[in-house]
This record gives sequence, C-alpha cells and structure tokens, in this order.
Amino acid sequence: MALEIERKFLVTGDGWRTQAHKRIAMRHGYLTPQDGPASVRVRVEGDVGKLNVKQAIVGMSRAEYEYTIPADEAEQMINTLCRGLILKTRHYVDHGGHLWEIDEFEGDNAGLVVAEVELRSETETFARPDWLGAEVTSEHRYYNNALASHPYARWSA
Amino acid sequence: MALEIERKFLVTGDGWRTQAHKRIAMRHGYLTPQDGPASVRVRVEGDVGKLNVKQAIVGMSRAEYEYTIPADEAEQMINTLCRGLILKTRHYVDHGGHLWEIDEFEGDNAGLVVAEVELRSETETFARPDWLGAEVTSEHRYYNNALASHPYARWSA
Repeated sequence: MALEIERKFLVTGDGWRTQAHKRIAMRHGYLTPQDGPASVRVRVEGDVGKLNVKQAIVGMSRAEYEYTIPADEAEQMINTLCRGLILKTRHYVDHGGHLWEIDEFEGDNAGLVVAEVELRSETETFARPDWLGAEVTSEHRYYNNALASHPYARWSA
Repeated sequence: MALEIERKFLVTGDGWRTQAHKRIAMRHGYLTPQDGPASVRVRVEGDVGKLNVKQAIVGMSRAEYEYTIPADEAEQMINTLCRGLILKTRHYVDHGGHLWEIDEFEGDNAGLVVAEVELRSETETFARPDWLGAEVTSEHRYYNNALASHPYARWSA
C-alpha cells in the first residue's frame, strides 16, 4: 500500500501551459458508487491500463493501491461496467523541487483545471507557482470520484 | 476479458472429499456494495493475492477480469476497505473430463457446500458426479457476493 498525501488547488491563468514537460490523455470511470468506503477506478493513461483502489475520504492522506492492467481490458470495463466517464489531459510541471500534476478536464467537466502536488508528509512545505489559485483539498466536489457523478457542467454558479 | 460460463449446484454427502486432488484455503471480501453493475473482489488464495472484477448478474455467463496482486496488499484491503468476509476451502475434483470446484464455507457460512463447474458454452453437457445435488445457478442467495452480506447462518429455514 502507498499512502497518498496530496493537496489540490485551483489554477489561475495559463502560465503553466508552457512549463509542462509532459502531457498524457486520460480516461477513466469507477466500478464503485460515489458513496462507499473505497473507490475503484479503471483508467487508460496514454496506452497503459491502470486499476486503482483508494480509500474514499476527503482530505490530504489516503491509502492507495494501484496495478497495471491490459489497456484493452481497462477500456472494456470503462465502456461496460463503470459509472461516470472522466476525460482529461494531465500536464506535468516541475516547480521548486516538486512535481505538479495539472488536470485539464474535458467532456462534462470542460473548463475545470485542478493542480495537485504529492507530498511526503502533511506538513511538508513547497514553493507556490505563480499560477496557483485557491486550495480545494477539503472540497468534496473537486474530487474525480464526485465529478464522475456531478460534473462541473452541472454545478450551479 | 474472459467470459465465465459456470453452473452451481448443492452437494449431497461427503463422497467428493476423497476425490479431491487439491485444496486451497481462500478468504475474500468485496470493494463494491451488494447491488451494483459489477463486483470487485479481493482474495487471498493460499499465498497469492487476486483482484477480480465481475459483471454482477445472476446466471450462467458473466464477463470477468482477474489480476494477480501482492498477497499482503490483498490482505490489507480485505481488512480495511472491504465489505463482508468469505472464508472457505476450495476442493478440486476431476470428473468425466470436467474440473469441479467444491467450496466448503466456514465462518458465518459454515455448513454450506457448493459445487461449480466451468463450461465452454451454456449448452455444453457434463457427467454428473453421484454427490451432485440440486442446481442453484439461478438462485441469487448462493452467490458469494450475496453471502458476504447475507451469510448462510442468518438464512431462515
């Protein structure tokens, strides 16, 4: 098991676009309902399949298990057994010794951009990139598991 | 994806015990609630971990995906994230060219013994061992996914 310690932020402006050194198209869905003790996510990242099990709590630290699986099987499960469909491009930006993952959502979540940084402890500090907006780590609706059932396009203003 | 085509039966008597050529202790739980489009099962079989995704329908044929995972991670997920706990010993019996898997349940399902045979098509015929009882392929309550929430010990007579 890995313990995922992660903070989530909104993003302001487009400055991060030119800083990205890698981009991967991702599509995923969930084998679990939105409210349960764990989420089971099936994802295709580029040409790789991934099956991910995560403790379904809102907050900085969560137990996580991830396994590589055949991409065609991941695709079949997404199309036939999963709830929701999350489409996004993940942009990778190095800043001040940390790797930022910036998710630019598409489909029903188009318009939403969320930046995440993985930390080694909940108290670890990090340099703030100038495009970093408000923190949303504690806001349930920004979690992919929630977006799969309540996409950004349907949020009230 | 594999298409699992399987028939389930009750068992009469103990004749199968001396015919078994292999036995494996199994413990598993589910990352999914009982009623959903798919079941996600985490199992430890002997010293091997398995993560299994199956179309959650009652009947002979079901889509199935299975992956080997580290046994210690399977054990952690069973203990911390899963619903239900199924304990059983699986006995393997060859009969008339088919492999029978006979599950002898323990814990809250003690007393229940179910035999399963995997077929290549829904119409494939097979030789009936003399210990084979009534077919329960279409009976929801005999599925492990149902037993995890409604164990045999709590069935009304």
